[in-house]
Amino acid sequence: MSFVPDAPPVPLHGDLAPDDFRRVAHAAVDWIADYLEHPERHPVRSQVAPGDIARALPAAPPTHGESLDAMLADVQQTLLPGITHWNHPGFFAYFANSGAYPGILAELLTAGLNANGMLWITSPAVTELEQVTLDWLRQLMGLSEPWFGEITDTASVSTFYALAAARERIAPSVRTEGMAGRTDLPRLRVYCSEHAHSSIDKAVIALGLGHHNLVKIPADDMLRMRPDALRDAMAADVAQGYRPMAVVPCVGTTSATSVDPVAAVVQIAREFDCWVHVDAAYAGVAAIVPELRYVMDGVDGADSFVVNPHKWLFTPMDCSVLYTRHPDVLKQAFALLPEYLVTRTGSEAVNLMDYGIQLGRRFRALKLWMTLRAYGAEGLAERIRFHCELAREFAGMVHFEGGWELTAPVTLSLVCFRHVPPDMNEEALAAHNARIMERVNARGRVYLSHTKLNGRYTLRLAVGNIRTDREHITLAWQELRDAARAELAGG
Amino acid sequence: MSFVPDAPPVPLHGDLAPDDFRRVAHAAVDWIADYLEHPERHPVRSQVAPGDIARALPAAPPTHGESLDAMLADVQQTLLPGITHWNHPGFFAYFANSGAYPGILAELLTAGLNANGMLWITSPAVTELEQVTLDWLRQLMGLSEPWFGEITDTASVSTFYALAAARERIAPSVRTEGMAGRTDLPRLRVYCSEHAHSSIDKAVIALGLGHHNLVKIPADDMLRMRPDALRDAMAADVAQGYRPMAVVPCVGTTSATSVDPVAAVVQIAREFDCWVHVDAAYAGVAAIVPELRYVMDGVDGADSFVVNPHKWLFTPMDCSVLYTRHPDVLKQAFALLPEYLVTRTGSEAVNLMDYGIQLGRRFRALKLWMTLRAYGAEGLAERIRFHCELAREFAGMVHFEGGWELTAPVTLSLVCFRHVPPDMNEEALAAHNARIMERVNARGRVYLSHTKLNGRYTLRLAVGNIRTDREHITLAWQELRDAARAELAGG
Repeated sequence: MSFVPDAPPVPLHGDLAPDDFRRVAHAAVDWIADYLEHPERHPVRSQVAPGDIARALPAAPPTHGESLDAMLADVQQTLLPGITHWNHPGFFAYFANSGAYPGILAELLTAGLNANGMLWITSPAVTELEQVTLDWLRQLMGLSEPWFGEITDTASVSTFYALAAARERIAPSVRTEGMAGRTDLPRLRVYCSEHAHSSIDKAVIALGLGHHNLVKIPADDMLRMRPDALRDAMAADVAQGYRPMAVVPCVGTTSATSVDPVAAVVQIAREFDCWVHVDAAYAGVAAIVPELRYVMDGVDGADSFVVNPHKWLFTPMDCSVLYTRHPDVLKQAFALLPEYLVTRTGSEAVNLMDYGIQLGRRFRALKLWMTLRAYGAEGLAERIRFHCELAREFAGMVHFEGGWELTAPVTLSLVCFRHVPPDMNEEALAAHNARIMERVNARGRVYLSHTKLNGRYTLRLAVGNIRTDREHITLAWQELRDAARAELAGG
Repeated sequence: MSFVPDAPPVPLHGDLAPDDFRRVAHAAVDWIADYLEHPERHPVRSQVAPGDIARALPAAPPTHGESLDAMLADVQQTLLPGITHWNHPGFFAYFANSGAYPGILAELLTAGLNANGMLWITSPAVTELEQVTLDWLRQLMGLSEPWFGEITDTASVSTFYALAAARERIAPSVRTEGMAGRTDLPRLRVYCSEHAHSSIDKAVIALGLGHHNLVKIPADDMLRMRPDALRDAMAADVAQGYRPMAVVPCVGTTSATSVDPVAAVVQIAREFDCWVHVDAAYAGVAAIVPELRYVMDGVDGADSFVVNPHKWLFTPMDCSVLYTRHPDVLKQAFALLPEYLVTRTGSEAVNLMDYGIQLGRRFRALKLWMTLRAYGAEGLAERIRFHCELAREFAGMVHFEGGWELTAPVTLSLVCFRHVPPDMNEEALAAHNARIMERVNARGRVYLSHTKLNGRYTLRLAVGNIRTDREHITLAWQELRDAARAELAGG
């Protein structure tokens, strides 16, 4: 069976010249440092049109190698106009992702080491630093042991894993037998608020549960899931033969950062023997602030939750954390051990590949560890607290100005609001506010996004960038008022 | 509904001092450059015991911020012993992940910009560079248009998405109705070789299809899926009421880099109206070498395939690419558009969030683009060709030495082999070779892994690190012979 053909001699090349890397990497550090000191030089939202960037690039790869210097220049000249600057202090759209200095430094080291923590042995420090760092984060949020944590790339994947674990717990035969063509398996249902994030929909669809089996529970007028409606829906479903599988309350909804009553939800879920996964992707880290710790009330009774350090904890993309009290179930849902991955490291060594789909694992823990250390518990709390203060100040400006209104309670760092000139119906208000937003975003000094709350078109100003200061809130308000005035003037 | 509480004044902190970042980032560049010039200073496989790294770290996070200098020192002193050095030229385990200079530089820029390409507008350059770069890679591999590509973190996720698309095509009602409790839905089945990767098993399990519905097709004595056995299995399943959903041939199996007959598989799959997803995660890039282009024969007839630049294309973790000819189906499987993600960028703008579970998207294309440019088509081909040559040379050493044998054909850059002293049965040979491997790995000069092929314990030497040169192959062989001799001497 051996097969050893003749081979012609070929030149060896190895990597590039080390001195080239040194020179260009130092230049890149200086460029990044300068960029981060003056992000406002760039329009926060890219102003290019679809296709502009693609057309500026060659249609085919080069035959021969090109210099790193040329590439660094191309990044600055060709690509930069196509970047929307998430690191710009005027970034108020969606939820902020701040890439602060400690995490940037960590990403450089992560890339240099290029460690892969798929198994414990393939880089013990990747696995163990991840577990230590996630235990630090647990402590910072004031949660009691034990919570097993693992880093994923996005909250969508964290929630997908959590619901896979829930399916494994309720219907373990699905792993081997699947769901199709079986008469012994009830339809499984998942419950969340009508304001829950689309990642829950995607997880339910991907798991093969069917989008119709995600039940959206009505919220109260503060946009919080109604426990009575939840219980009614679950009881009605059980009566019809459905099997409730999981409930996903949210701590900090995307549209309005409302917080579902987690403790009440947990109690109801227990009545139905249901998994509770808390989506705290954005707001969970607010619990680092002592006086905001209440946002995580009840989460200690849940089975899993997700929190995203790459959102409001100043850690560069991508870094989401899935915590669960049932790592054994998560492992049952995913673990497989082919011979080529067998190691002899004993039971003390955790192999993180067993807790999800991904096999390869970047050294993502490093950036979170360095971020937590660089600011410390007090420094993190002060920054998050300050962002909430800026949001309340902005809310005050809106609230006390004639012709504008807040459209949701301001509880954390998000302000939902809109311009309400007289004599406009809902449709006209939506179009008017959309035009205000586009006008502001096209100016490039601040960047906002929108949502709909109970049918009302609403602008969103989300504070969370580590570089945002009071002046940027003031600027945003100025830009919005100017835009509203120009709109009304038809200009 | 407005809610504007009083807020106490809090100190603003923002990010760290820019000069601190500059100083430490420059030091980190120098440290990485030095590390990459002398990776052999470190044992390639970490030699720590489980818990060593965790115990060396504080159990609780700091209250106050700490300096970046201290962290850089801790990385070097505390964490480095826990790193297995995937960038070490003696790394021959699993499949190599090389972090070459261009990609490291790109990762620094990616972290500095921290762009999130979830929507086209949230950084047009992220989406457009990804599409241009993946078209370059398609051209490099000699595939004909059109192939839609997207970057994911790992091949496991790429394959999961491909099979989700296959499910969507065959049984579109699953998206809304799910699979449980239905009598109108046949059980869906997926087919792969007995040597296929565990990521296919994980995808089938996660999708709710059931592990038993992944059918492992026997391979021939060259470890390739047998088309006749595939057709027989599919026909038998159809006769029993199963619905074949997808076939996943592999170009470069993990255990032995065998290549399934993709063209024949495609033809059979078409007879059964089945999706074909090709797992070319490791070996697909070999098609960049003109005389190895045959490895991708038949792939142009498939529906999707995955290839991992972070394996054998010198791009740092993580960078997997999923290509499909049916982006519309992939989008149908996943797309959802909540109001807070609605944009008005027109149909020319692709929103990559629509093609998978993940919403957030790092600027991963940058490292692949810079890698392709830095080496060019010829430079990439020369490096891959050289790795295949090194593997053949090593195979020659094994083949012509008494007492050793090759256990699989050497077709690319992986050598499967073992020591076969006289008078040992299979069990004894397995234990003997496992001890040889552990002895070599504990020495820290080279790192190998193992597998089983047709029940035979087999060592694997996988060439693929950009820094590996002829001397490291010779060293590996020397280490193995020394270890075998010591084992036989009982030393």
